[in-house]
Amino acid sequence: MIAAYSATSQARVNAALETLFSAPLPELARLYEAMRYSVMNGGKRVRPLLAYAACEALGGQAEQASGAACAVELIHAYSLVHDDLPAMDDDDLRRGQPTTHKKFDEACAILAGDGLQSLAFSALLDPRLSDCPSDTRLQMVTALAQAAGPAGMVGGQAIDLGSVGLKLDQKALEQMHRHKTGALIEVSVRLGALASGHAGADQLQALQTYAQAIGLAFQVQDDILDVESDTATLGKRQGADIARDKPTYPALLGLDAAKAYALELRDQALHALRPFDAAAEPLRELARYIVERRN
Amino acid sequence: MIAAYSATSQARVNAALETLFSAPLPELARLYEAMRYSVMNGGKRVRPLLAYAACEALGGQAEQASGAACAVELIHAYSLVHDDLPAMDDDDLRRGQPTTHKKFDEACAILAGDGLQSLAFSALLDPRLSDCPSDTRLQMVTALAQAAGPAGMVGGQAIDLGSVGLKLDQKALEQMHRHKTGALIEVSVRLGALASGHAGADQLQALQTYAQAIGLAFQVQDDILDVESDTATLGKRQGADIARDKPTYPALLGLDAAKAYALELRDQALHALRPFDAAAEPLRELARYIVERRN
Repeated sequence: MIAAYSATSQARVNAALETLFSAPLPELARLYEAMRYSVMNGGKRVRPLLAYAACEALGGQAEQASGAACAVELIHAYSLVHDDLPAMDDDDLRRGQPTTHKKFDEACAILAGDGLQSLAFSALLDPRLSDCPSDTRLQMVTALAQAAGPAGMVGGQAIDLGSVGLKLDQKALEQMHRHKTGALIEVSVRLGALASGHAGADQLQALQTYAQAIGLAFQVQDDILDVESDTATLGKRQGADIARDKPTYPALLGLDAAKAYALELRDQALHALRPFDAAAEPLRELARYIVERRN
Repeated sequence: MIAAYSATSQARVNAALETLFSAPLPELARLYEAMRYSVMNGGKRVRPLLAYAACEALGGQAEQASGAACAVELIHAYSLVHDDLPAMDDDDLRRGQPTTHKKFDEACAILAGDGLQSLAFSALLDPRLSDCPSDTRLQMVTALAQAAGPAGMVGGQAIDLGSVGLKLDQKALEQMHRHKTGALIEVSVRLGALASGHAGADQLQALQTYAQAIGLAFQVQDDILDVESDTATLGKRQGADIARDKPTYPALLGLDAAKAYALELRDQALHALRPFDAAAEPLRELARYIVERRN
């Protein structure tokens, strides 16, 4: 079921994203091409899926969350472009393709990332993509800026860079991941829920508990795949985290305990969804998928 | 008069900006320090001044525009941090101090810039800084994202990078500047006007004509100063544009004609303000200041 849901949602968000990359001037063609290259790359669209699924879980139509879905994917894409830069992780390969600074050049990649961040805020408010009341939209902008910014995702990148070679304990590792990947996953769910127009405080709280658990599970599984998978399946260099002496769950807990922890987090996520009816099934399936995926 | 107005406005925006750089976690101290360093550096605050002055020109209280003033300055600051990076302009000095990547490191500067962009959107909506109706705020977010993004400022940077060593004609040069510096100057005026709560369509149009003229005047004067001033006065390397073979107005028109053009643009700006009363005097003074400044 999740495969069909994913395919439908991916097609929906990809169609919406495609509308955003028409250069308004010939002189801007290369910048827009670099932005498009960074986004339209066969990504799994986990964050848009979460936005759509959260919207549906609260009785909304998935389409209502298209602005939110594009916004979170654009933020995610920009963070990868900048994260791959030579001064950061210095990666040449992303999803099996040259990273943006390899395909274009470093200056272009910096600007493409910067532009994608602005575009995320434009997309969130783009009336062609979705519509909702002004107060709701303002809540969405505030939440996205907070989650993407220095107290969220960017802060997580900074903590991550500062922790290379350090012996982090589990608490410190989780604090890093809660910022680096967790904040954007949580806001994906939150924006989708808000876009439904039916989000009560209790429901937002339950969905946040869900999102925190799957955000962490996503990271634990990423670390496990970095150990277990191979470069061809991953589309990026296998063992890259270990080679950089980055702290990982398998290094900290051992591989078997890391796998058990991923399953525990999945169960926490499913538990948080108990008050929801069958409309939350895609969210449940996503929680299962996150710990079962092989890339 | 403009000196006193500037001092008051600078103090107001600096006090508002200072509230934004408290790290929520000790692990984030360095990132927040780098963001603060990039912003609290004795900048002239031309864009915040424009926001305040536009707000007052329409009968608003300057304070109403503090969110807008912070937002445009944060966008400006982030663009400088990224523009100074080795892969971009590779500048070591900014306002007489080491650039952010020199004072910290490249990765930290990339992240500080990224974080400042998010922070700009947070500041624009921060109820501690200013308050206005939801619909107005949404217009402001949309305008800021558009002006900062790939069809605005970031696009201008891309055109600029693509034009090094090319023989641009005046039309192409102005197109570059309308994006690179003009878009943010225009939106500074627009956001300030919107923040007043009294912006009619005719007034917004007149203010846009004003802003387009001073935006271009600002750039022409920058190019003149790059030729005429010295490194100590500028706080950045004199002759840097010429050394990089970047297109400039003095190179294109000759120095005297460039100076005459700056004055003509100032007059266009003043002409656009004719429907406004004495409350627009700070805007008029700013138009004069832009072409008279020595750094």
